[in-house]
Amino acid sequence: MSAAVYEATTSAPVNIACIKYWGKRDTKLILPTNSSLSVTLDQDLLRSTTTSRADPSFTKDRLWLNGKEEEIKDGGRMDNCIKEMKRLRKVLVEDKDPNAPKLSEWKLHIVSFNTVPTAAGLASSASGFAALTTSLASLFSLPLNPSELSLIARRGSGSACRSLFGGYVAWEMGSKPDGSDSLAVEVAPQSHWPEMRAVVCVVSGEKKDVGSSVGMQLTVETSPLLQHRIKYVVPERMEKISKAIKERNFDEFAKITMADSNQFHAVALDTTPPIFYMNDVSRNLIALVEEYNRVCLEKTGHLGAAYTFDAGPNAVIYTLPEHIKAITELVLYFFPVPSAPAERSTQASAVGFTDVLNIFPEVGGKPTGKLIQGFNEEKVKKWDVGAVKGVIHCKVGDGPKVLGKEASLMTAEGTPKPL
Amino acid sequence: MSAAVYEATTSAPVNIACIKYWGKRDTKLILPTNSSLSVTLDQDLLRSTTTSRADPSFTKDRLWLNGKEEEIKDGGRMDNCIKEMKRLRKVLVEDKDPNAPKLSEWKLHIVSFNTVPTAAGLASSASGFAALTTSLASLFSLPLNPSELSLIARRGSGSACRSLFGGYVAWEMGSKPDGSDSLAVEVAPQSHWPEMRAVVCVVSGEKKDVGSSVGMQLTVETSPLLQHRIKYVVPERMEKISKAIKERNFDEFAKITMADSNQFHAVALDTTPPIFYMNDVSRNLIALVEEYNRVCLEKTGHLGAAYTFDAGPNAVIYTLPEHIKAITELVLYFFPVPSAPAERSTQASAVGFTDVLNIFPEVGGKPTGKLIQGFNEEKVKKWDVGAVKGVIHCKVGDGPKVLGKEASLMTAEGTPKPL
Repeated sequence: MSAAVYEATTSAPVNIACIKYWGKRDTKLILPTNSSLSVTLDQDLLRSTTTSRADPSFTKDRLWLNGKEEEIKDGGRMDNCIKEMKRLRKVLVEDKDPNAPKLSEWKLHIVSFNTVPTAAGLASSASGFAALTTSLASLFSLPLNPSELSLIARRGSGSACRSLFGGYVAWEMGSKPDGSDSLAVEVAPQSHWPEMRAVVCVVSGEKKDVGSSVGMQLTVETSPLLQHRIKYVVPERMEKISKAIKERNFDEFAKITMADSNQFHAVALDTTPPIFYMNDVSRNLIALVEEYNRVCLEKTGHLGAAYTFDAGPNAVIYTLPEHIKAITELVLYFFPVPSAPAERSTQASAVGFTDVLNIFPEVGGKPTGKLIQGFNEEKVKKWDVGAVKGVIHCKVGDGPKVLGKEASLMTAEGTPKPL
Repeated sequence: MSAAVYEATTSAPVNIACIKYWGKRDTKLILPTNSSLSVTLDQDLLRSTTTSRADPSFTKDRLWLNGKEEEIKDGGRMDNCIKEMKRLRKVLVEDKDPNAPKLSEWKLHIVSFNTVPTAAGLASSASGFAALTTSLASLFSLPLNPSELSLIARRGSGSACRSLFGGYVAWEMGSKPDGSDSLAVEVAPQSHWPEMRAVVCVVSGEKKDVGSSVGMQLTVETSPLLQHRIKYVVPERMEKISKAIKERNFDEFAKITMADSNQFHAVALDTTPPIFYMNDVSRNLIALVEEYNRVCLEKTGHLGAAYTFDAGPNAVIYTLPEHIKAITELVLYFFPVPSAPAERSTQASAVGFTDVLNIFPEVGGKPTGKLIQGFNEEKVKKWDVGAVKGVIHCKVGDGPKVLGKEASLMTAEGTPKPL
């Protein structure tokens, strides 16, 4: 009989911030200058899945990302995460139970896949570190809750800590120098407000000039406006948007989300030298949502959608089921996308549009080209095919999931299964 | 013998702000939320010229702007300016000197021409109201200095008050509710630092969504960051840039100018709904100047240029004589302009490039296509012809000028002379 296999496979979601994280007060511990808040996206389409295995026969810790082996740099973020998880295994499990196998002393093999299209700019590092942390916690049988695990994911990639929960999640900045209170908490579970939808618009653009890690520290060092944002604006917005989520108040949620996206890009622009993540296509996506909301307000007294942009030109448009068809029609009308690759119909693709949420059943998943009445077409420029490369629909979703053995990404030898 | 003709003709310059005016604390009196500071551009190319005449035979106040008669709306800004000037004529001249003709009781004809290409977005309302005010002051023989006149020009168009001086000009926001201390003062005359050059890049763009009067009040009402800018950032920058000008310290001048342009656009973006004046071409012009400065810093330890953008996509690049050739080469290389209309060689045109400052004498006014060594061409996208429509060179210049009779824009009948 073969020896026991110590292995765990988990998946973790992507999250999109409504109150933006921009700036670290401690770059080593990854402690932010302000709290932030996000919506977790459904893992059906977008997720990272990680299998980790501990085995006495392994000679060193190894990592494969999307099928390709990556070096685990000594003292790097990945290495720190792994070391911390091993330390916790020893302290919380092995030191207390002499019969527990000494997994903390064995080497690890880790295989991870993202179904998040890199080009979608949806920060696969967040879902990736959340999946890694959850997978090791499961492998090591650690008695830790998601908030406790978020402390470790945070040190891999700041916003990863928010992917430890489903639904609506706050990353509380904390105040302790050691970072032990800078962690994720659930504001409301997915089930509290399951109607939330997100339309991801993947915008074609040049490569970023400034990555977000470098960019945010430039802002911390040079933007006079950031200090005001940190001290006065964000604390108030965190309170207000948490309340809005608890009350399922989309108007308030949308207003704050749009204002905070704009303010994040404002402090980026207030940086020396200035940082631009949005381009003319992004600006036109904003114009589209603003005009849509103008019509909605006029007709119903309520907003219908809210845009938000991370450190790149892509838009995520939050909306509700009754608006998703109209929003999608509008986006595809003004920003026609190339055809989606046929074979990927059930998977997220950064190219084209696939009607995974089945919002155009009557026309076989194609938009009808009918815009809502009253929408002033002069407000948005009509772009050539491909200015927006792809449109992805999602719902708000659950937190990380521990998967069964059948989901393992590893061969018996501890290497990645072929795709 | 014909009766005396009471007429005066003056010209007034354009000014480009380094510390931006954005926001009114009193929209009727045009009192700003913060002080601002500008450089006055030479009137050789860009100016407004105004002839005003008072005559007992005129039946009503009339105004011709660029050859076309415009209505003077009762209680409008133009009307207010004219009324205030008449009041001052009465109080300061006629009430004191019983022999002075009662010009304040006669009607006025006013003819004004801008040589500022409207498309250049160089705020012809500033030079226009400055020329009007100076012309009436001259016609009425008012014993007022430029600061006193700036109070009246301000009520026509806020930034017009800064066009009452040449050189380097501050608009002090003041604190009195009646606005009597919200006026322009000279920081330094043109002769103190005559080397300053400006390269105006006229960017093609869609029509503005939001005019500046409406836009700035939206920012006042909705931007949380504006308050911090007003209270803390601008006062410090006003002091620092005034000192930099007095010391002819271009590095400091450039740093503050660029930072303040960016911060103005940052608070516009922090507005609900967000306001964008810069587009992708503007962003690339910023990238060009930033890369040029990087090379300059490396080679000489000093900056070579400073961009600034008003409420539109056009860039004004401040620079010094030793850099103007390199900057112009770079702009024309990455943003090739259409050919300049041949017949306008000595006049400012918003289209093409005319070597009015004679910086390319050896090649007949054409750029040579040679870029400075070390400039990383990857940093700027090369655009198609016409993304920048025109490039205009200017120097820092003098304040308003009272011109001789030969400059009159009026026929004997008091109507505009044919162009």
